[in-house]
Amino acid sequence: MNIEMIEAAADRLTGHARRTPLLSSAFLDDLAGRRVWVKPECLQHTGSFKFRGGWSALSALTPEVRARGVIAFSSGNHAQGVALAARRHGVSAVIIMPSDAPRMKIDNTRALGAEVVLYDRTREDRDAIGQTLAEERELTLIKPFDEPQVIAGQGTTGLEIAEQAAEMGVSRADVLVCCGGGGLTSGIALALEAKAPEMRVRPVEPEGFDDVARSLVSGRIERNATTSGNICDAILTPHPGEITFPIMQRLCGPGLVVTQDEALRAMTAAFERLKVVAEPGGAVALAAALYHRDRIEGDDVIVTISGGNVDAALFSTALTRFGGQT
Amino acid sequence: MNIEMIEAAADRLTGHARRTPLLSSAFLDDLAGRRVWVKPECLQHTGSFKFRGGWSALSALTPEVRARGVIAFSSGNHAQGVALAARRHGVSAVIIMPSDAPRMKIDNTRALGAEVVLYDRTREDRDAIGQTLAEERELTLIKPFDEPQVIAGQGTTGLEIAEQAAEMGVSRADVLVCCGGGGLTSGIALALEAKAPEMRVRPVEPEGFDDVARSLVSGRIERNATTSGNICDAILTPHPGEITFPIMQRLCGPGLVVTQDEALRAMTAAFERLKVVAEPGGAVALAAALYHRDRIEGDDVIVTISGGNVDAALFSTALTRFGGQT
Repeated sequence: MNIEMIEAAADRLTGHARRTPLLSSAFLDDLAGRRVWVKPECLQHTGSFKFRGGWSALSALTPEVRARGVIAFSSGNHAQGVALAARRHGVSAVIIMPSDAPRMKIDNTRALGAEVVLYDRTREDRDAIGQTLAEERELTLIKPFDEPQVIAGQGTTGLEIAEQAAEMGVSRADVLVCCGGGGLTSGIALALEAKAPEMRVRPVEPEGFDDVARSLVSGRIERNATTSGNICDAILTPHPGEITFPIMQRLCGPGLVVTQDEALRAMTAAFERLKVVAEPGGAVALAAALYHRDRIEGDDVIVTISGGNVDAALFSTALTRFGGQT
Repeated sequence: MNIEMIEAAADRLTGHARRTPLLSSAFLDDLAGRRVWVKPECLQHTGSFKFRGGWSALSALTPEVRARGVIAFSSGNHAQGVALAARRHGVSAVIIMPSDAPRMKIDNTRALGAEVVLYDRTREDRDAIGQTLAEERELTLIKPFDEPQVIAGQGTTGLEIAEQAAEMGVSRADVLVCCGGGGLTSGIALALEAKAPEMRVRPVEPEGFDDVARSLVSGRIERNATTSGNICDAILTPHPGEITFPIMQRLCGPGLVVTQDEALRAMTAAFERLKVVAEPGGAVALAAALYHRDRIEGDDVIVTISGGNVDAALFSTALTRFGGQT
């Protein structure tokens, strides 16, 4: 993994992925006690940054390999990203999704033309299911994060952050990244190492699923006790990746951990102050910026909103509980 | 009013207003029966396009005049746009708002440092109140739409639409604009006349408040029976402006009219498919594209989402009624 791979991915994504803006609000600055810059990847195609990695991986395959189709396993955002990237490349996609994934994510993945295979998150091993299907049908497996071309695609977010922050006169900041397996976090960290070396990337995770934060402390890959039972479904991975963890270990600052209620409150703040839709797992970095200000350093903080694929009912719950209080 | 005024406003806005992206979704394309391109001005500073006009007007004043302060009357979006533009210019702002404006809009305007004066929309004449206060304190009145520098500022949205549509290969389309007094509509129409002459701008209004649509038919300024009693608070103006109407008459295609329920449904579609927050009045153009497809022509339609300043309770109501149905 290196910056050249990220820049090559950026070339392949040009004209296909959306260059998301960098947003801000004086109200959020007041709440956070410093300037807050928000990279809303919820505005990316399919509603999350995952389209970047999906497109990067598919576009890096040879035409012959790609034509046989691809397969992916995902709680929903990688699913949609790969499904749309496959459709736009004119190839088929099989997506293995947990049966308890948000309804919208399953429906959207099907609507994007993919064949969806559901599995039980508590009893079955999605990796094993994916490997078997891939071998049977000669499909290329597009892993959700521990895959160099996927990391390169996610890293294009970091290239944009470096450019957009520089336009705002910001060269030094903590960069908070919503973190599951570490694809986005490690990709952004590699991009910023090359393009904005005074920035410090920090993974943000939900309470009880802080495998990356703990791994960064212990220096080895730590696992979560479970991968369900939290509203931040997008980032409930069992452990950091074999490829992503060494990158994070080399480049990232200490991890941050937020509660589910803080994520819901940050979703409401994004609604009221930025007018964008964040899903719970996509709101954890903003939550850390707003509600853990004492653990952050510097006059500026940059946060990713990694996705916005949330069911209407859960979003309404957040607004009902926290509306008017941000 | 001419294109040079809009281009000059664009120069003054550079580095201050946000260049909003042009969004799309395959799901919306399917619903609308054609490609839908969305200009989300809800992502503009203060959550609506009104910051463009406010900044344009304030930045066009002489420093001496500006230093005495400004005054504006507004249901809330122009209020916030002028308040922030005044604060960033370091001058004071008095804003006259109807007492039944959405709570968030009143609170935000105060939080942006403006002095807010409330009036009764059904019994008092906001123009008279504004004129009196302006004379007493030597404030410069920044009208919400019938003011050339305000129209020039809103017209910068049209310059961006022309550029962004061209990047997508779109030169011919109906351009649907959420329309109150016609500041945004006439500004965009002037910009596109110069930069994308094959586009046709069409105002969109809520049922019962279709003064512009009726004026375009009759050829003279028609009035609404009332200016309250509809959730689309941002665009409930009594009649088109003396300056805006002749521009719309010369350049715009027939007006479109949508119901309140269609606006709520379009808000839900923007939430689910674009991940942006639209207020009811800001969703009427999208509603027309999605639910009045037979009244629109061409393979592409461009719509503005003019603002996103909606209270959490009303947004939840929309999601509860229409979530999962877009």
